Amino acid sequence: MPDPRAATDALFVANNTWMLVATVLVFIMHLGFACLESGMTRAKNTTNILFKNVSIVAIGVLTYAIIGFSLMYGDDVLAGVLGFRGLGIGTDAAGVTAAYADGAYTYWTDFIFQAMFAATAATIVSGAVAERVRLGPFLVFSALYVALIYPIVGFWTWGGGWLGSLGFHDFAGSTIVHSVGGWGALAGVVVLGPRLGKYVGGQSRPIMGHSLPLATIGMFLLWFGWYGFNGGSVLSGDPGKVSFVFVTTTLAAAAGVMGAMWTSWIVQKHPDLSMVLNGALAGLVGITAGADVVSPLSAIVIGGIAGVIVVFSVLGFDRVRLDDPVGATSVHLVCGVWGTLAVGLFSSDVSFLDQLIGVAGVGAFCFASAFVLFWALRATVGIRVSADEELLGLDIGEHGMEAYAGFQIFTTQ
Amino acid sequence: MPDPRAATDALFVANNTWMLVATVLVFIMHLGFACLESGMTRAKNTTNILFKNVSIVAIGVLTYAIIGFSLMYGDDVLAGVLGFRGLGIGTDAAGVTAAYADGAYTYWTDFIFQAMFAATAATIVSGAVAERVRLGPFLVFSALYVALIYPIVGFWTWGGGWLGSLGFHDFAGSTIVHSVGGWGALAGVVVLGPRLGKYVGGQSRPIMGHSLPLATIGMFLLWFGWYGFNGGSVLSGDPGKVSFVFVTTTLAAAAGVMGAMWTSWIVQKHPDLSMVLNGALAGLVGITAGADVVSPLSAIVIGGIAGVIVVFSVLGFDRVRLDDPVGATSVHLVCGVWGTLAVGLFSSDVSFLDQLIGVAGVGAFCFASAFVLFWALRATVGIRVSADEELLGLDIGEHGMEAYAGFQIFTTQ
Amino acid sequence: MPDPRAATDALFVANNTWMLVATVLVFIMHLGFACLESGMTRAKNTTNILFKNVSIVAIGVLTYAIIGFSLMYGDDVLAGVLGFRGLGIGTDAAGVTAAYADGAYTYWTDFIFQAMFAATAATIVSGAVAERVRLGPFLVFSALYVALIYPIVGFWTWGGGWLGSLGFHDFAGSTIVHSVGGWGALAGVVVLGPRLGKYVGGQSRPIMGHSLPLATIGMFLLWFGWYGFNGGSVLSGDPGKVSFVFVTTTLAAAAGVMGAMWTSWIVQKHPDLSMVLNGALAGLVGITAGADVVSPLSAIVIGGIAGVIVVFSVLGFDRVRLDDPVGATSVHLVCGVWGTLAVGLFSSDVSFLDQLIGVAGVGAFCFASAFVLFWALRATVGIRVSADEELLGLDIGEHGMEAYAGFQIFTTQ
Repeated sequence: MPDPRAATDALFVANNTWMLVATVLVFIMHLGFACLESGMTRAKNTTNILFKNVSIVAIGVLTYAIIGFSLMYGDDVLAGVLGFRGLGIGTDAAGVTAAYADGAYTYWTDFIFQAMFAATAATIVSGAVAERVRLGPFLVFSALYVALIYPIVGFWTWGGGWLGSLGFHDFAGSTIVHSVGGWGALAGVVVLGPRLGKYVGGQSRPIMGHSLPLATIGMFLLWFGWYGFNGGSVLSGDPGKVSFVFVTTTLAAAAGVMGAMWTSWIVQKHPDLSMVLNGALAGLVGITAGADVVSPLSAIVIGGIAGVIVVFSVLGFDRVRLDDPVGATSVHLVCGVWGTLAVGLFSSDVSFLDQLIGVAGVGAFCFASAFVLFWALRATVGIRVSADEELLGLDIGEHGMEAYAGFQIFTTQ
Repeated sequence: MPDPRAATDALFVANNTWMLVATVLVFIMHLGFACLESGMTRAKNTTNILFKNVSIVAIGVLTYAIIGFSLMYGDDVLAGVLGFRGLGIGTDAAGVTAAYADGAYTYWTDFIFQAMFAATAATIVSGAVAERVRLGPFLVFSALYVALIYPIVGFWTWGGGWLGSLGFHDFAGSTIVHSVGGWGALAGVVVLGPRLGKYVGGQSRPIMGHSLPLATIGMFLLWFGWYGFNGGSVLSGDPGKVSFVFVTTTLAAAAGVMGAMWTSWIVQKHPDLSMVLNGALAGLVGITAGADVVSPLSAIVIGGIAGVIVVFSVLGFDRVRLDDPVGATSVHLVCGVWGTLAVGLFSSDVSFLDQLIGVAGVGAFCFASAFVLFWALRATVGIRVSADEELLGLDIGEHGMEAYAGFQIFTTQ
Repeated sequence: MPDPRAATDALFVANNTWMLVATVLVFIMHLGFACLESGMTRAKNTTNILFKNVSIVAIGVLTYAIIGFSLMYGDDVLAGVLGFRGLGIGTDAAGVTAAYADGAYTYWTDFIFQAMFAATAATIVSGAVAERVRLGPFLVFSALYVALIYPIVGFWTWGGGWLGSLGFHDFAGSTIVHSVGGWGALAGVVVLGPRLGKYVGGQSRPIMGHSLPLATIGMFLLWFGWYGFNGGSVLSGDPGKVSFVFVTTTLAAAAGVMGAMWTSWIVQKHPDLSMVLNGALAGLVGITAGADVVSPLSAIVIGGIAGVIVVFSVLGFDRVRLDDPVGATSVHLVCGVWGTLAVGLFSSDVSFLDQLIGVAGVGAFCFASAFVLFWALRATVGIRVSADEELLGLDIGEHGMEAYAGFQIFTTQ
C-alpha cells in the first residue's frame, strides 16, 4: 500500500486536484462580481467599481495569509496574529503537517481555497455601497472586515467554534459567507445613505445599469464559479457528494431564474433581465447552506422561492429607501438567511432552531461590527465622496480616468 | 482491493472529477452563446437576447430533469414522463443505482452533464430568430424542443435506439446536438421571415453586430467549453482518449479559423472578423462527430473545410433570403452535417451511408417538428413582434429596459 | 499492480486530468490577451486587435503541430521539420510512445499543453504593436516567431539544451515565454515607431484605452489561466507541488496589485486602474520563473517589487518614446527579467549568475531575431499602415468593419 500522503497516492492526487480546480472556479467569481456590479451601475462609476474589485481580491488574499487563516483555523492565536500559519512557517514544501496527514488535500490547498472564499465576503459589500463611497476608507473597511470579522464567524462554524458544536448546518456558507457580506452591505447602505437623485420628492427614481451584457457575464461567471464554491465545500472529490451538490446547485439556480422571471413578469408587467440575473444568484445563495443534504426536488423549491423573494426584497428595500444599486443585500443577505433556514425545513437532520440561532448570532455580530466600522470611518476620515464628485462620477473624481474613453455617454442619467 | 464504487476508489474519483469539470465547461458555453449572439446583433435587441439565453438554460435544465433525461435514457417511459428518473427517485444519495455500479461516474454526474448538453440544443435556435421573435412563444418553443425533440433524437443514437444500433457514429453530437439546434434554427428562420430592412429592393443590406468584443468573448468561451463538450463525451478520464480528443478538437478549430480567414480574405476582399469567429466554431462543430476516431491530420482537413464552408454558407443563406443574424444555421446545421458525413470519409471504421442515414433521419424529424411547432405558435399566439416594436428594438418593447443606459446609440441602423 | 499506462491506472488518470485542465486554463489566456489589449487601445482599432488574437491562436497551434513541437523536444530535426512529431506519426491512438511510458501524461497531452504555451509567446507581441501595424506582415512575423524562435529557446531550457544543462532555472517561463514575447514586442515597437499623435511637440500625450471593463476582464482571465500556466508546469498533479505553486502564484499576483496601487497612487497622485491591472500581471510574470522554489513570503516580495517596477517601467518607456499601447514590454519583458533574476536571489539552490546568463542569452537571440524579422518585413512589404488609415482606424482600413456599429464614438481621440 502506498504512503497515503505521497504524490504517488492516486486518491490523494485526485482529491487534491478537484480542490484546486474548485479554487480556480472560486477565483473567477471575483471577475463575476466585478462584471455584475459594474454592469448594474452607471458608466461614470465603472472604473471605480472595477478598481475596488481588483484591489479587494488582493487585500483579501494577503490579509487572509497574514492573519485570517490563523484566526479561523489556528490552534494558537498568537501564531495566527503573526501570520505564521498563513505563510506556512513550520510546514514543509509539500504542504504536509501533522494536521493534514490523513486529509484529502495539502495544507497549501486548504489555505488557497479558504483564501478565495474569504475574499468574496468583502466583495459582496462593494456593490451595495457603489457610486458614492470613497475608495480609501472602503478599502480600509474591506481589509478589516475580511481580516477579522469573517474569520471569527468562520471559526464559529467551520473552525471548531460554538455554532459548529451546536449543530448549525451551513454547508458552503449561505450564512458564513453570503450573509456576512450581506450584513456588511446593509450596514454600509444605512451609514452611507442613498445616491443623489435616487429619492426625489417622495419618489424612488430608477437608476439604470449601464451595461446589461456586462451584468449577464457577471451572473454567468458567478454561477460557473459556484460549482467550485459549493462543489469544493465537499472538501474532497467524493464522487457521490460532489455530483449531488452539482445537481442541487444547478436545479436551485435554474428554479431561481424561473421564480424571478414569473414574479417580475407578473408584478412589474414585463420580464426584467436584472431581476432574472438576481434570481439565478438568489437560487445559488439559497441552496448554498443545504446543497449537500436537501433532495433535488427540495433544491428546486428552495431556489424557486429564493427567486420570488429576491424580487420582492429588491422592491421592498427600495420602498424603505435603502439604496443598494446592485441588490446585494437582497441576494446575499435575504436569500442567505432564507437558504440557511430552509435547511431546517427541508432536511430532517437539521434543527430549524439551530439554524435560527446561527442566523441571528452571525447577523448580530456582523451587522454591529460593520456598522461600527463604517460609522467610525464616517466620523473620522469620511466615507462619502462630495456631491460634485458624485454627480461628475467617481471615475474622474477618484481615478482621473474614464472607463469608456471616446464613447458619447450621458453622465446626467 | 477497494470497493469499486466507494469514494476511496481513486480511479472512480479521478474519472468522476473529469466528468464534473467537463460539465462546468459545457455550462459556460451558455455564456458563450449569450455573448456571441448579442454581440452579432444590434444594441437595441441586446437585453432580449440575453434574457433568452439566461432563461433557456433554466428551462433546459428543469425540463431535462422532469422529462428529458428519462425519455432519452430511461427504461420506463411512464417513469420518464413523471420525472422519476431526472429527480432521482430510487437513487441513493451517493448516486449509485444498479445501472451505474460499474461506470466511471455517478448517476448525478450523468444527469448534470447530459442536462447541460440538452440546454445547448435550444440555445442554438435563439441566435437565428433574434431581433424579431416574441419572447413568450419562443420560450414555449424552446421548452418543448428541449423537453421532447432533443431527447428523442438523443435516445435514437446514445440511448439505445435505432441509429446507435445501425452503426451511426456521432461522438459528441455534430448531428445530435448541433444539427438538432440548427434544424430548429432553420425552421424558425423560414416561419418567421427576415428582419425588417434586411432585404430591400431586391438587395440584401448588411446589418452589423453592435459589439465585436462581445462576439469574440462568445467564440472563445464556446471553444473553451468545447473541451468539456468533446472531452467529456469520452465519458471517463481515460488519458489516451481524452487527450486525443483535445488534440483533434484544437486542430480542427484552428484550421477552421484559417479556412474562414483565407476564404473571406479572397471572396470578400478583406479579412472579416465575424467570419473568422464563425470559422472557429465551424471547425469545432465539424470535428464533434469524429473527434475520437479521425487522425490529427484529418482533423485539420475537416476543420479547414468547415471554415471554408461556413463562409460560403453564410453568403448563400443570405442570397436565398434566409435571414439568420448570427449564422447559426451555417455553423451548427451545415457544418454539423459536414462533420457527421466526414467521419464516414475519414474513418475506415464508419460507413458513409450510415452517416447519411443519420443526418437525413434526424434532419427530417427535427425540421418537421420544429416547423410544426413554430407554425402552430404563429397560427395561434403569433411569434413575431410588431413592426413598430421591431424598429424600436425588443429591449424596450418586450422588457422596458435598455441594454446600454446612458450611451448614445443609433437604433436606426 | 495495474499496467502503469492503462486507463485503469488511477494515478495516471488523475495526473493526466490535471494536465488537461491546465491546458484549458492556458487556452483561455488567449481570450484574456484579446480583452486586455483591445480594452487598453482605442475603439477604432478593436476589430483589428481581436482579429490578430484569434488568428494567432490558430497560427500558433498549427505551426507548433507542424514544426515547433519537433524542434523543441524532438530527437530528429528532419522529422521535426516535416512535422512528424506534432501530428503524431508513429504514435498509437492512446498517445503512448516509448518516451511517455513512465510519464504522468500522454503524448497528446504533452503536445496540446505545450502548443497552448507556444501560442502565448506570439500573442504578447500583438499588444505592443497595436494600432499601427499592418495585419498581413504581422501574421507572417507571428508565424515565424512561434514556429522557429520560441521552440529554439524552449529547447535550450526545457528540451535538453545548453541553458537547462547549465542550471538555469525558469520554472514556467518568465524568460522562456514572457521575455521571449517581450523581446519581440520591444523589437516591434522600435522598428514600427510610435503611434501618430503620441509624441507631439516634445510632449507625450496620453491615449486612453476605450474600455476598462474589457481590460479588467482580460486581466482576470489571464490570472485565472495562470493557474494552469504555472500549475500545469509541475507536469503532474503532485498535490504538494501544484498547491504550493498555486499559493506562490496567488500571493505574488496580489502583492503585484498592491505594489502597483501604492506606487501609482503616490507617483501619479491617483490610483490608476490600468496600472493596477498591469501590477497583477507583473506579479504573475515575476513569480513564473520561481513559483516552485521560493517561499510564500518571498513570493509576496517578488510580486510586490514587480508591481512597483511595472509602474516605473511604463512611465520610463514612455519617457524614452517607446510607444507600447498596453505596456506589454513592461509586464512581460521587464518583469520577466526581474522574476528570472529573483530566483537567483531568493532561492539558495539557484545561481544568480546562471540566471543572468539565461536572461542575456535569450534576450540577445530573441531581440536580434525579432528585430531582423520586423526590419526585413519593413524593408520589403512594409509593416505600417498609412497615416490616413491610422487616423481613420484599422477596423475600417484593414477589415471594413466597425467593432461597435451603432455607437457614437469619437475616433479623433
